[in-house]
Amino acid sequence: MILAQVEGSIVATKKNPKMTGAKFLFVRPLVVDKPDAAELRPGASTLVAVDSLGAGEGEVVLIVQGSSARLAGTDKDSPVDAVVVGIVDTVDVSKRKLYQTK
Amino acid sequence: MILAQVEGSIVATKKNPKMTGAKFLFVRPLVVDKPDAAELRPGASTLVAVDSLGAGEGEVVLIVQGSSARLAGTDKDSPVDAVVVGIVDTVDVSKRKLYQTK
Amino acid sequence: MILAQVEGSIVATKKNPKMTGAKFLFVRPLVVDKPDAAELRPGASTLVAVDSLGAGEGEVVLIVQGSSARLAGTDKDSPVDAVVVGIVDTVDVSKRKLYQTK
Amino acid sequence: MILAQVEGSIVATKKNPKMTGAKFLFVRPLVVDKPDAAELRPGASTLVAVDSLGAGEGEVVLIVQGSSARLAGTDKDSPVDAVVVGIVDTVDVSKRKLYQTK
Amino acid sequence: MILAQVEGSIVATKKNPKMTGAKFLFVRPLVVDKPDAAELRPGASTLVAVDSLGAGEGEVVLIVQGSSARLAGTDKDSPVDAVVVGIVDTVDVSKRKLYQTK
Repeated sequence: MILAQVEGSIVATKKNPKMTGAKFLFVRPLVVDKPDAAELRPGASTLVAVDSLGAGEGEVVLIVQGSSARLAGTDKDSPVDAVVVGIVDTVDVSKRKLYQTK
Repeated sequence: MILAQVEGSIVATKKNPKMTGAKFLFVRPLVVDKPDAAELRPGASTLVAVDSLGAGEGEVVLIVQGSSARLAGTDKDSPVDAVVVGIVDTVDVSKRKLYQTK
Repeated sequence: MILAQVEGSIVATKKNPKMTGAKFLFVRPLVVDKPDAAELRPGASTLVAVDSLGAGEGEVVLIVQGSSARLAGTDKDSPVDAVVVGIVDTVDVSKRKLYQTK
Repeated sequence: MILAQVEGSIVATKKNPKMTGAKFLFVRPLVVDKPDAAELRPGASTLVAVDSLGAGEGEVVLIVQGSSARLAGTDKDSPVDAVVVGIVDTVDVSKRKLYQTK
Repeated sequence: MILAQVEGSIVATKKNPKMTGAKFLFVRPLVVDKPDAAELRPGASTLVAVDSLGAGEGEVVLIVQGSSARLAGTDKDSPVDAVVVGIVDTVDVSKRKLYQTK
């Protein structure tokens, strides 16, 4: 999984019928640099994930990718490859709390 | 999934028999940079996706990759790893509308 | 899928028994740069793909990767992750013909 | 698989129900440079892996990714794509012992 | 598949029970640069592959990744994502023999 931040949303009226009702979130991966592990740094490879937990803009989430993403929802035959599987409360790295939800 | 723009097409007469009739689109991933999230920026790793929705050149689409791509079409045994699953109407990032179909 | 050019071949006598008879091609991904979409540019991450169509050196091909590659051949249990699924005739990008087989 | 070092942990109270009880580790890939293969160098693309072996902060672990990660745990239907499958004792590269657990 | 060179080995006593007896090789991807395709160049993203053919240090091998790696061994339920499926005899690129086993 990766850490990511929800930055926006995508609307696609014309889509695969198995995706009807899906909520598409625009998300940005978050990484932590070495040796100065002081913050979650925004990554460059933005992607689109299906929401299954009601994640809102600004929240830090856990994203599962690949075939496992299909197991996160209700329809195992939905053609999705990235889904939100957790809304993050805290991220602790090298004994420092880098993120805490408000 | 990723956002991508349809830039062209590929013709391959000699191909795997399960791909007969498939329409191959040449697509370019789109990302959004930080902190200036003002536009969809063209990425470098161009790829080829099968169209299942009638996407045309210039349109912004959602692409699913990996094994999930096989679930987007009519034949689950087709050897495809990237398929268009949505034609994008709007992309909103950080409260700005970065894309809107005409 | 990705566009790639066949550049060579690999021989491996000692191999997984399910791969007996497989022809291993050395291939190089091809991408198209922006804004000057004038040619197919050779990429850096060369890989090895199994041929299923009789592709020859210099030809531009479509490569499928991941689990879908197993569906391109005759044995779904063969441990392959990249297979040639098409021999490309033409590549059209932004209204320009970037490649045409001779 | 990749070598990685456990650097921290993530808490996500709101998560996919199949992930109840999962322990999320923040891990950093480790690579070895050429020609000076003298140490395990921290990589940049940090990720989140589920622990199945009781790995602790600072330990070097083996991470399996993709669909195979689902086979490492007790529930094959859990939507995970990265799991710790080994706690590393030693890493030997080019006749040098680059890592040894204490 | 990718070309890679075996550079070392990893020992992990505490591991997933399905991996008992597995031999973990430390391998480095090999690529060929353009236009000077004169040698196999060592890549940077080192990984760990399970050996199924008795590959030794210094040998050039074919590595299969992802779910297909599970088909290379005797246990399809083993949580592996990279396995040696061939020991390379020769690599020919652009009419030059870039590698030949001794």
